[in-house]
Amino acid sequence: MARPLRVTAEPGRTRPVMIRPGLAVGDGSPVVIAGPCSVETPEQIRTAAQAVRRAGARLLRGGAFKPRTSPYSFQGLGEEGLRLLSWAGQLTGLPVVTEVMDTAEIDLVARYADVLQVGARNMQNFRLLTALGETGKPVLLKRGPGATLEEWLNAAEYVANRGNERIILCERGIRTFETYTRYTLDLATAVAAKQLTHLPVIADPSHACGRRELVPAMALAALAAGLDGVMLEVHPDPARAMSDGQQALTPADLERLMATAGLAPETKAADSP
Amino acid sequence: MARPLRVTAEPGRTRPVMIRPGLAVGDGSPVVIAGPCSVETPEQIRTAAQAVRRAGARLLRGGAFKPRTSPYSFQGLGEEGLRLLSWAGQLTGLPVVTEVMDTAEIDLVARYADVLQVGARNMQNFRLLTALGETGKPVLLKRGPGATLEEWLNAAEYVANRGNERIILCERGIRTFETYTRYTLDLATAVAAKQLTHLPVIADPSHACGRRELVPAMALAALAAGLDGVMLEVHPDPARAMSDGQQALTPADLERLMATAGLAPETKAADSP
Amino acid sequence: MARPLRVTAEPGRTRPVMIRPGLAVGDGSPVVIAGPCSVETPEQIRTAAQAVRRAGARLLRGGAFKPRTSPYSFQGLGEEGLRLLSWAGQLTGLPVVTEVMDTAEIDLVARYADVLQVGARNMQNFRLLTALGETGKPVLLKRGPGATLEEWLNAAEYVANRGNERIILCERGIRTFETYTRYTLDLATAVAAKQLTHLPVIADPSHACGRRELVPAMALAALAAGLDGVMLEVHPDPARAMSDGQQALTPADLERLMATAGLAPETKAADSP
Amino acid sequence: MARPLRVTAEPGRTRPVMIRPGLAVGDGSPVVIAGPCSVETPEQIRTAAQAVRRAGARLLRGGAFKPRTSPYSFQGLGEEGLRLLSWAGQLTGLPVVTEVMDTAEIDLVARYADVLQVGARNMQNFRLLTALGETGKPVLLKRGPGATLEEWLNAAEYVANRGNERIILCERGIRTFETYTRYTLDLATAVAAKQLTHLPVIADPSHACGRRELVPAMALAALAAGLDGVMLEVHPDPARAMSDGQQALTPADLERLMATAGLAPETKAADSP
Repeated sequence: MARPLRVTAEPGRTRPVMIRPGLAVGDGSPVVIAGPCSVETPEQIRTAAQAVRRAGARLLRGGAFKPRTSPYSFQGLGEEGLRLLSWAGQLTGLPVVTEVMDTAEIDLVARYADVLQVGARNMQNFRLLTALGETGKPVLLKRGPGATLEEWLNAAEYVANRGNERIILCERGIRTFETYTRYTLDLATAVAAKQLTHLPVIADPSHACGRRELVPAMALAALAAGLDGVMLEVHPDPARAMSDGQQALTPADLERLMATAGLAPETKAADSP
Repeated sequence: MARPLRVTAEPGRTRPVMIRPGLAVGDGSPVVIAGPCSVETPEQIRTAAQAVRRAGARLLRGGAFKPRTSPYSFQGLGEEGLRLLSWAGQLTGLPVVTEVMDTAEIDLVARYADVLQVGARNMQNFRLLTALGETGKPVLLKRGPGATLEEWLNAAEYVANRGNERIILCERGIRTFETYTRYTLDLATAVAAKQLTHLPVIADPSHACGRRELVPAMALAALAAGLDGVMLEVHPDPARAMSDGQQALTPADLERLMATAGLAPETKAADSP
Repeated sequence: MARPLRVTAEPGRTRPVMIRPGLAVGDGSPVVIAGPCSVETPEQIRTAAQAVRRAGARLLRGGAFKPRTSPYSFQGLGEEGLRLLSWAGQLTGLPVVTEVMDTAEIDLVARYADVLQVGARNMQNFRLLTALGETGKPVLLKRGPGATLEEWLNAAEYVANRGNERIILCERGIRTFETYTRYTLDLATAVAAKQLTHLPVIADPSHACGRRELVPAMALAALAAGLDGVMLEVHPDPARAMSDGQQALTPADLERLMATAGLAPETKAADSP
Repeated sequence: MARPLRVTAEPGRTRPVMIRPGLAVGDGSPVVIAGPCSVETPEQIRTAAQAVRRAGARLLRGGAFKPRTSPYSFQGLGEEGLRLLSWAGQLTGLPVVTEVMDTAEIDLVARYADVLQVGARNMQNFRLLTALGETGKPVLLKRGPGATLEEWLNAAEYVANRGNERIILCERGIRTFETYTRYTLDLATAVAAKQLTHLPVIADPSHACGRRELVPAMALAALAAGLDGVMLEVHPDPARAMSDGQQALTPADLERLMATAGLAPETKAADSP
């Protein structure tokens, strides 16, 4: 197989992906991306965004176009979800990450999002990758649950090859025989991706584990392994989430985790009058 | 998760998918779909089509838009490939099957193809599935190498849900730890798909095995398990194939296999003057 | 890694393993080994053995020492189970196959059994393999659910290397992400094992599928793929089986399967007065 | 399936396993076990032990009876290896961990070892587990590469059930489709094992990764996830190791890792007179 050329040009020398002035992924200080699985209501996304901001996360995630196993499951709010996400991001000053599912929707999603996410199921949707390579937007490329390291890096190459090297790789668990967890978070391969490319690499322990009680430990593990950040599902009221509630942290969970990780915002004089 | 409703309405009672008058998949007599991985030249596809026809296969396959792991691998001839495939099909009287990779290409591919294939990597490209549900064309839906039975049937439901129940399921191997074969052909799950739905189910031992010498045994196994057909890669000169040559049968291999399977055309009076 | 030498000395030229005069595995006519998962009572094993015999199977299987995931599950009847199995074999004229779990038990089991089975969980119990290499008894070596082809053949080499080449390989399903079936029956690798060695290779679709309704299709598939036989769980009353009842065929199921496979005993003059 | 009872009696409340006075695994301060894959020569094991001691590891590992895929690979020095390992342990004051492969060898190995290791391939060697349950010795139980969490905990139950609860669980990588690493280190399931039992749990990133350059990151990840320790392969001269050299750290690698992990011995006044 042809090797990926562009993304492996300087193995191990991570080049930061600038999101906005003052915020990059891969510059040596780990970044937390957090938010709900799906954007559901104005109140829900606003509350989530504020909690995420307060805890010290730097980007807000939220799904508007949701790829769901069944056509009868909640498919996201669509453009309305994009609008709400963008609004919550502006309220809190957080750039937003959301998924784009089809070439025909790139323009729409790009109007609202700061980072365009390629979901795990679309990792080898080559038309989508190529089209994203022609935007100038940062792309968050999730590893497919059945994809090898080689396939993942080649998927990134499809984007880079069209001139867009603003790519963040995201390991989110692979399919294995173990069913206690939803997927198996493959941190070693994520570390290998950092060693072999110059792309920043993050991990998504929420989707990988599928169980809230394992997420903090695996987020800490990902950071200790040297990854550039983690992506976490946080919901103001997980029990009522319209999708994946069992893996969402509460705002309080997130604050504890950020404190343990040494990533909580400093509580300065300004906070105590 | 919401259950697939339409495709499981009559479990185990396979409804044939008509391809053209006199040719259905799932009517009780197994069908062989054969042809090269990629359409390469007029000569190549014509020779392949004639060999396929002579051996008794009923449909011609061939890739024009090729999803490849690397952007630097041969990506297929595109529309020119579609034209050549369609031409070879007409020459030999065989309907043709070829892959469609993106919603934006459905109209183009549908102009040339009798059956629209969804490749394994796109099994959960939900926009593509939905759009194919709105064509009236037969859809050959390959199982993703990392997809569970439940996900596969729900992917079919995305098509059926839009009113198109002309779906043929195709098992083509799943990702496992075994590396001697390219993938692991999961015939038991293919049989389960037949038991749980009314859709015809076929197998693709060529992609699953990745080794020519295992293909005939696994094709015979698939037919003995009661599947509705097999899809086989056949190339007039495998050593020169532009993709996947190591798994392609020669025309002579195909003839032997068809004879062993009892599917060779009868050598009638017409053959002996 | 060092290659297995003895078992690959004549790739693809299967040498039959003689079980007793007139009965070999690997001589070109496929052999069915059938019986209950566990020996439970005299009545149960006798009834099972008679049904197995009547249907045309050539060897009787039954567990006396049962390796079970939990220490609190039924562990088999031990030596009493061996005695009953041997008695039922003598009653029906069928040689018997049963598992040996530890070097310290080989002598005991060998006193009662015609074929010594190494269970999947013990495939790399190298002390056991070596010790079995020093008996002259036929060994049925199951592939471990997490074992590669290379590991399986090397496990056989541990036996052959000590001078005992009376080895029958048995594929019984590998661990994959698919959970609809208990394991994934990997027939392609079983075929590869035949191509690479001179050992007979059989398949065990009962353990692989874990669901009765898939077993006949997969048994037929295994035979069509050219394997030397199949091993099937059959219980006179599956609903009351002390282990693995959901995957056991009834005697009637077995008879139907044997007839479909063309392996039913000929109904000779004796049957019609 | 019957649930494991003893090992899950107090989920999440880890009970330390005392190795010797002043040294426990699971008491809240993580423990590093290090040493060569195989004991090879007096010089090699002595040098390794001294390096391991100097770096701050608390137990010495080394294989004397080596389970190897091929019978033609180096099988370890046997009892001579046990003697050398024990000698090196005494020289450096480190307790030693080594593998026992068969019920018939328990007494011999127990004479030399402080902790008896059950290798991954023997995780479901139930006779061995039961016999180890009847010794009073600490048992280090590796997870099988094809074993689920449920099977792993039940294997521990086989030991506990006989009265020996001095069990340390060790995750060492599972078999998945990813081949860049040797196995996939499944830290999430290791964390789950800690949450569900009262047993200490450690990880072995050396066997899991199979590549030296990934080991430090994964060791740090395991510790950050809250595991009770890590087991590391260290060789004075990895390029000349008789087994698994490509995954062994050098003594200098180990010192760097221990320093990063905050586990290096304090260089106190006492050290400089």
